[in-house]
Amino acid sequence: MQAVVITDGNLEIVERPTPEPGPYDVVVSVRAAGINAADLLQRQGFYPAPAGSPVDIPGLEMAGVVSAVGDRVTEPLLGRRVCAIVGGGAQATHCLVPAEHLIFVPDDVSWAEAGGFAEAFTTAHDALVTQGHLVAGERVLVSGANGGVGTAAVQIAHALGAHVTAVTRTTQHHEQLRSLGADATITLDEVSSIDRVDLVLELVGAANLSQAQNVLAPRARIVVIGVGGGSRVEIDLRLIMGLRATLTGSTLRARSREEKADVIAQINQSLVPRWTDREIHVPVARSFELEEATLAYEYFAESGKFGKVLLRVDQ
Amino acid sequence: MQAVVITDGNLEIVERPTPEPGPYDVVVSVRAAGINAADLLQRQGFYPAPAGSPVDIPGLEMAGVVSAVGDRVTEPLLGRRVCAIVGGGAQATHCLVPAEHLIFVPDDVSWAEAGGFAEAFTTAHDALVTQGHLVAGERVLVSGANGGVGTAAVQIAHALGAHVTAVTRTTQHHEQLRSLGADATITLDEVSSIDRVDLVLELVGAANLSQAQNVLAPRARIVVIGVGGGSRVEIDLRLIMGLRATLTGSTLRARSREEKADVIAQINQSLVPRWTDREIHVPVARSFELEEATLAYEYFAESGKFGKVLLRVDQ
Repeated sequence: MQAVVITDGNLEIVERPTPEPGPYDVVVSVRAAGINAADLLQRQGFYPAPAGSPVDIPGLEMAGVVSAVGDRVTEPLLGRRVCAIVGGGAQATHCLVPAEHLIFVPDDVSWAEAGGFAEAFTTAHDALVTQGHLVAGERVLVSGANGGVGTAAVQIAHALGAHVTAVTRTTQHHEQLRSLGADATITLDEVSSIDRVDLVLELVGAANLSQAQNVLAPRARIVVIGVGGGSRVEIDLRLIMGLRATLTGSTLRARSREEKADVIAQINQSLVPRWTDREIHVPVARSFELEEATLAYEYFAESGKFGKVLLRVDQ
Repeated sequence: MQAVVITDGNLEIVERPTPEPGPYDVVVSVRAAGINAADLLQRQGFYPAPAGSPVDIPGLEMAGVVSAVGDRVTEPLLGRRVCAIVGGGAQATHCLVPAEHLIFVPDDVSWAEAGGFAEAFTTAHDALVTQGHLVAGERVLVSGANGGVGTAAVQIAHALGAHVTAVTRTTQHHEQLRSLGADATITLDEVSSIDRVDLVLELVGAANLSQAQNVLAPRARIVVIGVGGGSRVEIDLRLIMGLRATLTGSTLRARSREEKADVIAQINQSLVPRWTDREIHVPVARSFELEEATLAYEYFAESGKFGKVLLRVDQ
C-alpha cells in the first residue's frame, strides 16, 4: 500500500506492506481520510501514536470499503461502506480497524464527507452526551464552533433539542453555523453578555475558557477537548464550588479498544440514522490528493476555513 | 433564647425569640455548636446566610436535645440526642432544624464532640463519596488534613478502605493524623514526590491544588470544598484531557432542603454506625462558652490547632 509517512517532520508518500487483518479486525480500502489537529502535533513530534498503531503514519479517521475481514469476524462486512476512528495510520491506501469500531456510512453520502465524519462526530457526541450529560432544553456554548468537531457539536446539540450558542473568533462563518442549527452566533468578546449556559464544550482552550467560566449556570459542566488556543487557564475555584460546576476533559485516542467500541455503538445507534436522514452532515472545506498531504496540512493549519479537510484516495 | 449575633462585624450575645417549629421542623435545645470558616466569612460580610435562615446569627452546626416538635412530624423525636447542619443560627441556645435533617448522636459521645460532627463529617462524606465516587483500594490525597473536614475525611476514607495521604502545612499534627488512619503524612513540598492519586480532596485551595494536579492518576477526581488558601489556580487543561480527570466542587449550604435530606440519610446510614463503634470520632481542639464567641473565633482563625473548635451552651 501507499501511506503518508512522517520522516524528520516531513510528510512523504512511502510504499509499505498492506496490513493483514487480525482475527477480529478488518482492512479498509481507504477512499478519504480526514486531517485533524492531532496529525499536526504528531508531525511536530508531540502526541505520539498509541501502542498498536503505526508509529509514523498519521491519520485518525478514514472512510472506505472493507476489503479484508479477520477469520473470527462473524458479520458480513466485506464490501461494506464504513468509516472509523483509528489510533493512527488512516492516511494511507489501506487501514486496519477493529471490526467493532466500524461506523456504517449511509449510501448517499460522498466519500469526502464520510472521511471526515468519524473523528469529529464521535468526539463531539462523546463530549456532549457521555461526558457532558447534555439533555434537551439545556443551553450549550460551543467554543470554537467553526472547526470539524465544532460543526459536529452544533448539529448534534441542536438535534438533541439543546439551545446552541456558537462562539468563533470572527463573524465569518456565522451564517453557515446558523444553517447547521446554532440558535445564536457570537464572537469571543460577546461571551460575557450571553445568558448562563449549562454546558460549555471547549474546543479552543485557555483564552476562551477564561471567558466561558463567567457565564456558567448552576451545575454547569465544562468539557475540554481542545487546547490549541492555550492549555493553562486560571480557574476560579470559588465559582466552581458555588455553582457546583464540573470541569473535565478527555481524548478519544488513548482509550482502550473496548471503551472505543462502546462509544462507536452509540454512534451507530443514535447518529447514523440522523446522518442517513441528512439531519446531520459533514461540511467539507476542501479535499486534496493523498500525494498533496504537505499542502493539505498547510491548508488545515490556516485560519478562516469552514468544515473538514480531507485527503482523497483514488483506487 | 440567647444567640450570638453579628452586629457591624462584632459578635454579641443578644436575647432573641425562641423559634417555634414549623409543621415539619424540630427545635433543638443546643448543648454545643461548632465554629467553621464560613462563620468567619459571614462575620466579615461575605457568604450571607441562605433564605430561611437567621440573617445575623452565625453557626452551621450544633448538637443538643430535641425540645419541641412540629405537629406534622410523626417520629418520636422529643428528647432525642441529635446533631445537624443548618443554614445558619446554630450558635444560640435554641435552633430550628427540619426534622429530616437530624443526625442521631450515639449515647456515649460527649456534647462537645457531637457539636462538631455534622458539618465536617457530612461535608467530607459528600465530597469523598457522592462527588468523588471514592471506592475501596483507591489512593486519596487530603489537602489540608488537619482541620475539621480534613480529620473527618482522613477517617472516612480510611474506613472505606482507601489509601490516605494527609497533606498539611507543617509536620506538627502528623502523628495525630496517622492515629486517625492516614497511611502517609506529608507537607506541601512533598506532594510532587508521592505516587499518583485517584482522588484529591482539596480543602485549602489554589496553592495546594497547584501541586496536587501534578500527581493525578488516570480518571482522577479533584473535589474542591475549601479555598481559604486562594481561589484562583492555574489548571493545565492538556493534563486534564490526557488523564480524563475531573475538577468539581460544591458547598452544602446552598442546597435545597430535599437535597440536604438525601445527604443526611446517607450519614445516618453509613457513618453513625461507625461513630457508635468509635471507628470515627471528632477530635476537639478546644471549646468555649457561648459568651466567649469572640475569643473562640480568634482561636479558630489561628493556625496550628488540631480538631474542631466549639461553643458550649450550659442549659
